Amino acid sequence: MNTDEFRRTGHELIEWIATYRERMESLPVMSPVAPGDVARQLPTEPPMKGAGLDHIVQDLERIVLPGITHWNHPGFFAYFPSNSDLASVLGDLACAGLGAQGMSWQTSPAATEVEDVVMDWLRQMLGLPETFTGVIQDSASSANFCALLCARERSTAFGQTRGGMQWEEEPCVVYASSQAHSSIPKGALLAGFGKEHLRLIETDENHALRVDLLEAAIQADLSAGRVPCAVVAAVGTTATTALDDVRGIADLAAEYGLWLHVDAALAGTAMVLPECRWMWEGSEAADSIVMNPHKWMGVGFDCSAYFVRDPEHLIRVMSTNPSYLRTAQDGEVRNLRDWGIPLGRRFRALKLWFQLQDLGVEGLQRRIRRDLDNAQWLREQVAATPEWELLAPVPLQTLCLRHVPAELAGDEVALAAHNLAIVERINRAGHCYLTPAVLKGQQMIRVSIGSTPTEKRHVEGLWQELQLQAVASLQGPVASSA
Amino acid sequence: MNTDEFRRTGHELIEWIATYRERMESLPVMSPVAPGDVARQLPTEPPMKGAGLDHIVQDLERIVLPGITHWNHPGFFAYFPSNSDLASVLGDLACAGLGAQGMSWQTSPAATEVEDVVMDWLRQMLGLPETFTGVIQDSASSANFCALLCARERSTAFGQTRGGMQWEEEPCVVYASSQAHSSIPKGALLAGFGKEHLRLIETDENHALRVDLLEAAIQADLSAGRVPCAVVAAVGTTATTALDDVRGIADLAAEYGLWLHVDAALAGTAMVLPECRWMWEGSEAADSIVMNPHKWMGVGFDCSAYFVRDPEHLIRVMSTNPSYLRTAQDGEVRNLRDWGIPLGRRFRALKLWFQLQDLGVEGLQRRIRRDLDNAQWLREQVAATPEWELLAPVPLQTLCLRHVPAELAGDEVALAAHNLAIVERINRAGHCYLTPAVLKGQQMIRVSIGSTPTEKRHVEGLWQELQLQAVASLQGPVASSA
Repeated sequence: MNTDEFRRTGHELIEWIATYRERMESLPVMSPVAPGDVARQLPTEPPMKGAGLDHIVQDLERIVLPGITHWNHPGFFAYFPSNSDLASVLGDLACAGLGAQGMSWQTSPAATEVEDVVMDWLRQMLGLPETFTGVIQDSASSANFCALLCARERSTAFGQTRGGMQWEEEPCVVYASSQAHSSIPKGALLAGFGKEHLRLIETDENHALRVDLLEAAIQADLSAGRVPCAVVAAVGTTATTALDDVRGIADLAAEYGLWLHVDAALAGTAMVLPECRWMWEGSEAADSIVMNPHKWMGVGFDCSAYFVRDPEHLIRVMSTNPSYLRTAQDGEVRNLRDWGIPLGRRFRALKLWFQLQDLGVEGLQRRIRRDLDNAQWLREQVAATPEWELLAPVPLQTLCLRHVPAELAGDEVALAAHNLAIVERINRAGHCYLTPAVLKGQQMIRVSIGSTPTEKRHVEGLWQELQLQAVASLQGPVASSA
Repeated sequence: MNTDEFRRTGHELIEWIATYRERMESLPVMSPVAPGDVARQLPTEPPMKGAGLDHIVQDLERIVLPGITHWNHPGFFAYFPSNSDLASVLGDLACAGLGAQGMSWQTSPAATEVEDVVMDWLRQMLGLPETFTGVIQDSASSANFCALLCARERSTAFGQTRGGMQWEEEPCVVYASSQAHSSIPKGALLAGFGKEHLRLIETDENHALRVDLLEAAIQADLSAGRVPCAVVAAVGTTATTALDDVRGIADLAAEYGLWLHVDAALAGTAMVLPECRWMWEGSEAADSIVMNPHKWMGVGFDCSAYFVRDPEHLIRVMSTNPSYLRTAQDGEVRNLRDWGIPLGRRFRALKLWFQLQDLGVEGLQRRIRRDLDNAQWLREQVAATPEWELLAPVPLQTLCLRHVPAELAGDEVALAAHNLAIVERINRAGHCYLTPAVLKGQQMIRVSIGSTPTEKRHVEGLWQELQLQAVASLQGPVASSA
């Protein structure tokens, strides 16, 4: 492709993306296609002749777009928000156009230094002390995994340089809440701790880790000759945005010598608001913290911010230094290849820079406050309406609710089916997209507010639709999507 | 940012990228900035007010561009090529604009299905049998790590679901060549095998793993009660593109029950040429294979292709299934979150699709043959020129050479300094960029051909410059970059 073809299709694509964002509200949030619908429109064999990209925008429109679930739609209330704001899209475009590798400082000094600067901006925005240094990881899953690997190596005095996990005589134990994100058990298992040495501690009525049970578990492991190694405190769990008592957990971590990792993947963004910082008080004592600008902050995936107190330890766990990677500046610069698992690194700091530059701290604060207000408004509606109930507190922007009509009260099986049916009806109708979840055995409707274009009227529309579909669901079968 | 601002800056950015690519040859390949030069041009505090992106293209030009080492420059002969062709840039733009999450099929069916289709195109292009299924990972480092984790779990009958590595009584052992990429030892250490259970087998005069020594090592471990677990065969090592005897290693892997992982990160692209496929004969017996479209195939980082023979095993090692991630289609679709470490997934298949569509198999073949021919041409020059020598065979596009002037012959320390000085002079002159490396104690000049715009004249220019700077280096100190 020459630069003239690039210009032609590039400008066309910019228009297509702008138009896509403008008409998004008219599209069904959740893709309505059936399995195989997209694949069967593509040839089963690779093209032998180069065909250029003259038709690619039409192909995107015809083949791809129907198969997209629109994460930037104002009716997106599923999972957690994962916004790709337009400023961030431009940052990603600049990143792709430059095509730079940031694995070492020398391989593109700007990739390292812009990351240094904007990650420090982010640290300041979150109210974290200067004792933390940040680095971009692809995802909170990977950051959580890194944290557990670092914890493992600290507890075993760098066992990886000797016999590895398998020759440590006293097994190391990881602790987290039973409401911890799935990447915590996954990371602990991949790191070789073993399921038998993973303690998912029960939670209290607010779905936060019970610190008393954590201490009891630590003591039981110590008595049995095991090594308490790491504890993960969740600030904003995935199911309900429950807030673990970070201070209480930090005190235990200090007392028993555990690595403290704070997982604030979603909630971290709220720390841009000083009035929210009580939620993670104690985090300043953490060994590592993760929060995702690629969720609620509008920076497109992937951009996960990992803050550590001891970069030297991270580097010692992750570093490689073969001759073909050495450069003249190694002693005086950061080589970010040694700060995570992958060697290669895209220039992801650009999209974070573009987004913060475009929005500013105050612009971001306004948006987060809007979402928190919308969540409180919906909480009030649910609380004030007969036959609707909240299953968890609403400290942030996610609500866990369900409809309990009088005729089904007490019948958990019927209630689960009824609430799942409400979600399915709403998703098929296309104006909103919700993901259901099970909380301690109860089927719930989970409403996560925070898509960038979601204004109060969209939340009002969702509430109307929830009530309408609750009635409809009691009356008949799920409407066909046809 | 509203869509009008996006259009304005987006079009400007498309022009800037096109112009950047057009004038690239006039820029110094390796960034000439000193540590701190980029960072000090940015404010130390985040912007409070949103400022929009009206000046961002000027900022890119003024602050960022001088700090870029140009990986798509025709004079880029460093590391391995990591091309971001313009078609791929457009694919990344579409990916960012759609902002879709491909973690589950339902979260954007097109992200999964386009990946299914284009990864199968790629499998066919590489001549791999239908017994392999492909998935995109971020990097070969991560794919290698996944392979070792899968091997560990196979050898321990899913020890992660019990006591983990630490309770397996017989330690598991990983084997690879001493020329294996640094991500292999890193992955083995992170996976908990421990350095004591990592065997880096010596190589032969062609720098390929010695299969006889591999078998001896396996037998020694068996005799000592250890469990031979995995072997990595390198097709195209990083230092010299040496070719391990995959068939011989595969036979041993079959005999002793080892997981066979083939690391063809760079060389995999050459398998698009039928005449190159002898290089990885035996790979059809592998349990897993990695090759990087983001290297020589022109697809921008990150796009690493990981092929496995038993997807069910991969899924069992990597899967998580909390209620908030379950969807109605789980039984009938691929949920790619279960095929690697991160949960979230960008729509990376778009850029692979765009690139293959634009270039076609034949276009890609032409380009690879061009690079192979250029490498052979340079090999012939070096071989025919007094005082220059080749330190390794040239099966692909990378040459390992050095200048041995009569006055320094036999003095390894002086030769190392001399050849490093040649590289430093060339890098500072700015027309070409080379990365030196040490091969079995000998300092070499490493020339890796394969940047998309690199034509024969650029390789001719490099050869002239090597000869000129060799003479200059004998005559005086390194020229200052000032």
